[in-house]
Amino acid sequence: MGNTFGHLFRITTFGESHGGGVGVVIDGCPPQLEITAAEIQFELDRRRPGQSKITTPRKEADTCEILSGVFEGKTLGTPIAILVRNKDTRSQDYDEMAVKYRPSHADATYDAKYGIRNWQGGGRSSARETIGRVAAGAIAKKILQQVANLEVIGYVKRIKDLEGIVDPNTVTLEQVESNIVRCPDAECANRMIELIEQTGRQGDSIGGVVECVARNVPKGLGEPVFDKLEADIAKAVMSLPASKGFEIGSGFAGTLLTGIEHNDEFYIDENGEIRTVTNRSGGIQGGISNGENIILRVAFKPTATIRKEQKTVTNEGEETVLAGKGRHDPCVLPRAVPMVEAMVALVLCDHLLRHHGQCKVL
Amino acid sequence: MGNTFGHLFRITTFGESHGGGVGVVIDGCPPQLEITAAEIQFELDRRRPGQSKITTPRKEADTCEILSGVFEGKTLGTPIAILVRNKDTRSQDYDEMAVKYRPSHADATYDAKYGIRNWQGGGRSSARETIGRVAAGAIAKKILQQVANLEVIGYVKRIKDLEGIVDPNTVTLEQVESNIVRCPDAECANRMIELIEQTGRQGDSIGGVVECVARNVPKGLGEPVFDKLEADIAKAVMSLPASKGFEIGSGFAGTLLTGIEHNDEFYIDENGEIRTVTNRSGGIQGGISNGENIILRVAFKPTATIRKEQKTVTNEGEETVLAGKGRHDPCVLPRAVPMVEAMVALVLCDHLLRHHGQCKVL
Amino acid sequence: MGNTFGHLFRITTFGESHGGGVGVVIDGCPPQLEITAAEIQFELDRRRPGQSKITTPRKEADTCEILSGVFEGKTLGTPIAILVRNKDTRSQDYDEMAVKYRPSHADATYDAKYGIRNWQGGGRSSARETIGRVAAGAIAKKILQQVANLEVIGYVKRIKDLEGIVDPNTVTLEQVESNIVRCPDAECANRMIELIEQTGRQGDSIGGVVECVARNVPKGLGEPVFDKLEADIAKAVMSLPASKGFEIGSGFAGTLLTGIEHNDEFYIDENGEIRTVTNRSGGIQGGISNGENIILRVAFKPTATIRKEQKTVTNEGEETVLAGKGRHDPCVLPRAVPMVEAMVALVLCDHLLRHHGQCKVL
Amino acid sequence: MGNTFGHLFRITTFGESHGGGVGVVIDGCPPQLEITAAEIQFELDRRRPGQSKITTPRKEADTCEILSGVFEGKTLGTPIAILVRNKDTRSQDYDEMAVKYRPSHADATYDAKYGIRNWQGGGRSSARETIGRVAAGAIAKKILQQVANLEVIGYVKRIKDLEGIVDPNTVTLEQVESNIVRCPDAECANRMIELIEQTGRQGDSIGGVVECVARNVPKGLGEPVFDKLEADIAKAVMSLPASKGFEIGSGFAGTLLTGIEHNDEFYIDENGEIRTVTNRSGGIQGGISNGENIILRVAFKPTATIRKEQKTVTNEGEETVLAGKGRHDPCVLPRAVPMVEAMVALVLCDHLLRHHGQCKVL
Repeated sequence: MGNTFGHLFRITTFGESHGGGVGVVIDGCPPQLEITAAEIQFELDRRRPGQSKITTPRKEADTCEILSGVFEGKTLGTPIAILVRNKDTRSQDYDEMAVKYRPSHADATYDAKYGIRNWQGGGRSSARETIGRVAAGAIAKKILQQVANLEVIGYVKRIKDLEGIVDPNTVTLEQVESNIVRCPDAECANRMIELIEQTGRQGDSIGGVVECVARNVPKGLGEPVFDKLEADIAKAVMSLPASKGFEIGSGFAGTLLTGIEHNDEFYIDENGEIRTVTNRSGGIQGGISNGENIILRVAFKPTATIRKEQKTVTNEGEETVLAGKGRHDPCVLPRAVPMVEAMVALVLCDHLLRHHGQCKVL
Repeated sequence: MGNTFGHLFRITTFGESHGGGVGVVIDGCPPQLEITAAEIQFELDRRRPGQSKITTPRKEADTCEILSGVFEGKTLGTPIAILVRNKDTRSQDYDEMAVKYRPSHADATYDAKYGIRNWQGGGRSSARETIGRVAAGAIAKKILQQVANLEVIGYVKRIKDLEGIVDPNTVTLEQVESNIVRCPDAECANRMIELIEQTGRQGDSIGGVVECVARNVPKGLGEPVFDKLEADIAKAVMSLPASKGFEIGSGFAGTLLTGIEHNDEFYIDENGEIRTVTNRSGGIQGGISNGENIILRVAFKPTATIRKEQKTVTNEGEETVLAGKGRHDPCVLPRAVPMVEAMVALVLCDHLLRHHGQCKVL
Repeated sequence: MGNTFGHLFRITTFGESHGGGVGVVIDGCPPQLEITAAEIQFELDRRRPGQSKITTPRKEADTCEILSGVFEGKTLGTPIAILVRNKDTRSQDYDEMAVKYRPSHADATYDAKYGIRNWQGGGRSSARETIGRVAAGAIAKKILQQVANLEVIGYVKRIKDLEGIVDPNTVTLEQVESNIVRCPDAECANRMIELIEQTGRQGDSIGGVVECVARNVPKGLGEPVFDKLEADIAKAVMSLPASKGFEIGSGFAGTLLTGIEHNDEFYIDENGEIRTVTNRSGGIQGGISNGENIILRVAFKPTATIRKEQKTVTNEGEETVLAGKGRHDPCVLPRAVPMVEAMVALVLCDHLLRHHGQCKVL
Repeated sequence: MGNTFGHLFRITTFGESHGGGVGVVIDGCPPQLEITAAEIQFELDRRRPGQSKITTPRKEADTCEILSGVFEGKTLGTPIAILVRNKDTRSQDYDEMAVKYRPSHADATYDAKYGIRNWQGGGRSSARETIGRVAAGAIAKKILQQVANLEVIGYVKRIKDLEGIVDPNTVTLEQVESNIVRCPDAECANRMIELIEQTGRQGDSIGGVVECVARNVPKGLGEPVFDKLEADIAKAVMSLPASKGFEIGSGFAGTLLTGIEHNDEFYIDENGEIRTVTNRSGGIQGGISNGENIILRVAFKPTATIRKEQKTVTNEGEETVLAGKGRHDPCVLPRAVPMVEAMVALVLCDHLLRHHGQCKVL
């Protein structure tokens, strides 16, 4: 259960870290959208390990194949299945994982729930699962761009205590991609890269915060009550591995203001549009988009996989120690950026289709 | 759309602030659960306005009626419909709301989405909608208690910058209910109450943070990938009015630690159970409960309704000013406590039923 | 579980035969639809018992109250809750039902599933549950009519072996309502009425077939694969009490033709529209409406409640006999007509919203 | 939309007739079920074209690959993705299909809905889509057998007007598979085969009725109201290509009986179990299984693809004629048997998991 996300633009991911492959089936994609495997691959390449010196050295091409739903370069309105084969070279690094539970990983809880687990590379709980999300997100982004010129841009806002200065209202994809840590504040990015490298050399890991903005969001997306736009986005990003917190607009800091300081006053802009002077609401009021930029932040804990020795237990209930061998990813944040973007795009696309229907939107 | 929550324990709320009434239909409740209207009323009374000097002075009894699904004091397994009548005394205070959009409220976005809105008392976007959630949450809590002795306890952790010291592992409902602000730190509670009263007198409002703990959670609840327990809880609480942020376990603060500092090492306790030494995971690993206490926090912005004058616009697109008249709720936090508890209980109950089925759980 | 139907136009019914009342919550209704309680009551009156000499003599007004979702005569886009109070006069007729399982009723299976049941009047398995469906169907019909001038008309096609001659392409509501058995073939209707009366006097019951047509259905409704229009309609009507069979278009009789006899050849009509010469497909091809009339039939078994003596068992597992006392409904068909119409309208409305979105359809 | 079926045992199929392949993702399969590709292949072989002289001569191996969800021969509880590659040899036979709409096919309605269609081999509307259903059904059958020794057996009951005599209470898979038409009445089967061959030689096609029985069904499966067991089964089988009608138990014929003739009287059997003397209910009462055999029938129209010349139109709106070239399948019934079994098994498995939960059932 729980491998499907979305209501009208609905994705189902599948696959373990090792085995035949990972992928996604997208149901509800509008017909006649031009899409190529290359456009999907662009996002997968932003997600894949081994893309730079500060991510896990594991090299995987993560080449995607579109199995269905696209005909002569256009979507059919039928399910789009996308498959990425696993290279399937079972690493000796993982042998210990068959018996020892890695701290702050899902090994023990999977065993508690299912009584069985594919322990190779973390199985279903591996971040490889997000390949399907990012592939689907690439299509969602294309739809949003085609329908509303809507763009979703994420970036690293903070690594540990190093926080970049970024204006969400103007930041561009080019700025995000201009360095390997995906922080558009170039000076801060350099310090972040240095910190990640140093942490990696120590066999340790660090986390941080990804900020994400959606611009040109039409008014009226989102449903009142349970499917509020911020609620659906919260679920979306809190389902990403390693995420521990979520904020929309003013977030936790907003609790330090009073009502008069926090409220977004309305005005009429030069086009006669109703706008807000400030945007502490983060582009959403009453669960529904108000046309301002949607701005959110996601906290990612330090990667659980480290090379330092830790106390743990075996699946037989005996205490032992574990020290991660070989490669590890000292900081997931740069790779988390396309994941966050994908999840936000999926939610927005789903709500766009709720508003317009699958076949009428394009 | 979007008025239904849950998968196996599924609630649908209905009703506007003014009109016939508000309520909820609960589908999937296990049969043969003993439940009374009084048990539901207990939680509604914790939520209702006018319960103390620091909440909105509006007096409403919010008396609930069980319309279906219960027979001779026991649930039937069929839908439980619960209705709370509105007193329906249309206040003159609301007349301006027909034309002026209240800043940081949902008036403008509802109009943008639907082209129509019940402007009396905020209509569907009124916090009265949460009556249905709290009523359903009362039943969810009873199920959790009966099946697993599981208890969900929320409390005010912080009001603006006043933060209480509370141990989530030992706090009791009695401690929470021992003062009107629902902060178990008595000394801090007094200062909070004073701050709320002072703010209310100024016609302003303040927000804060509710913390919530679930204890005796069985291992194995939650689904990997999209329906991770923390993702479902995030959606649940972020769908509450005025919520702006969510954290599980170490949350945003956890991003300041390194992996070796953050990871929860395993050990075997005196009963042979696998436990974690620390609980930065907040009781959930890989989306699945690990048996430790689930601990989470929700940020609530300062109430949007204030008596101070603000700039705004009319539904005709003209700029104007608005000053809330009469009563207002200077701080929603004390009343938000039962709402957070309800949403957490609903998620846990839903996942409990996914694990056991509706009819086999009790 | 299972008390919700539909995807975008989604209804949840609640209530037992005895107790506070029965009703429905409709989520996803387009905003700004003009609707009155009287329009809903019109359909409820076609469904209610005691409406004529050939239905059960039990007299109930079944007066509906709209609790939410409508403001100044128009829908808000928010949930519409409709309540019909039970008169709650517990009949002595039902006392035996607490212990004796009525043959071909749901008493025994409810007990097997839930271990508890409201035995008064059949509880949740009573046909009173369909009040909520018919009320929601009245709104669905109004939407279909407003959006596409689409009309859904059902009628009694056959009672036992008495089959009326009716042209589904031209039949009108007035013709259906022109007699109490709701068979537009007036001569046959008289014989049907006579047969029902005679059967009722004998304490027995009879069944038959309801035929239903939807006219002016836009092309393109329905989803390929699982949510084919005929599949959703089949589920809809097979969820009605006492239904035992379903046919679309040529149905079972179509299996006696060969392909060349059965296929619907295409032609271009005077407006340049693609049409079919025949309509053995029943208005649906590949699960999607083709613009021709949708024609379907539903088989209803003879009512299970009869006054003749039958062998049965008690909930204690002892063999006994049962003879229904007092009133019984010798033939459900006339009252089933509005139920079938409602279910067909609900499916069509749901698919219309899938195609257009909730807020863009009107 | 509409490519997902089921609630707790949930399948999503994908793929067009031509292109990368067809397949299914199964979410919610209980963990620790032993399953092999060979067990799935057994059912696919019963479904595949070219299996005998009376099915379409198109030869396809339809070899399946399990991509995920199975580890060392056992299910993990995670999604099981199954892929069958298309051979992808685009046939010249299909060229006309790009422009001419085949009568009683989905070509025209797909174009009306999506404005685009993969015309090769029928694209998504091809019966190849059912490969995913049959593969998933194989797993559902295994679960049903392991949990309850429940077996689902379908067979050809009637071809055109040739009806076999079969006892659903005793028929075996071996009897079904003992001839190529899958009618356990050997004498009738011979006449059916002769009729199919003769029809095929004439370029025409015929239909008929598949009957299906589920034995050893536990009491208590199914949900009251909308998700009644017969309603879910009706939707399941009416979503199969070419199905035009559905019956449960006494079906349409039951409408010719009176209540006293139709009702299933109860008795206590030698094991103290509550049983019914007759089984006109078809194993389901009030939407819930009563422990008797579930018996249902599905009407399949004559295959729409024939070699005889027919009038039709082009996608440009011009009238023309079409004569199917090359191979065609004169009767889909023998191949429809495993499809019906699969759909019934999927519904029963879904309801079994609703009752027991995913992880507690095995």
